[in-house]
Amino acid sequence: MAEDNTVYIGRKETMAYVLAVVTLFNQGTKTVVIKARGRAISKAVDVAEISRRRFIEKAKITKIETDTEKIEEKDNDRTVNVSSIEITLEIEE
Amino acid sequence: MAEDNTVYIGRKETMAYVLAVVTLFNQGTKTVVIKARGRAISKAVDVAEISRRRFIEKAKITKIETDTEKIEEKDNDRTVNVSSIEITLEIEE
Repeated sequence: MAEDNTVYIGRKETMAYVLAVVTLFNQGTKTVVIKARGRAISKAVDVAEISRRRFIEKAKITKIETDTEKIEEKDNDRTVNVSSIEITLEIEE
Repeated sequence: MAEDNTVYIGRKETMAYVLAVVTLFNQGTKTVVIKARGRAISKAVDVAEISRRRFIEKAKITKIETDTEKIEEKDNDRTVNVSSIEITLEIEE
């Protein structure tokens, strides 16, 4: 999956990411991957649901995967575990 | 899926729900479904990841589904859309 088909969910409002997903599909992309970690996971599901139900009705969720990532803390040598999600939206012609 | 194999994620701390999942598996349940709505979705992913990686290593995530549910607001006639997730954990013998 090329990086330019990926939308990373951060601290912006939900609709900013929906717009990013919709724009990719409108540019002819057939597969968009939404990625998020930690608390942004809920927002990633919102983005996928809103995108496919309200804007790109041909798009379907074809894969959802979760994982645990180890993040190094800046101030010390500890690593913390953070859950992550990858939601694949695909246009089926 | 029978209701008693389902763990609903709410406002308690993450480990309370991990304990519920682990207890079900230890009682012999082969399939546990974790359900959450809205902001609890991130916690549901945490519960699934922690349960399978730290406690029930034979359990695998076999299905993840998202949906949009309409919730009626108490004080008026409006309905709001809320994302939901269902994560199925299964023990493969």
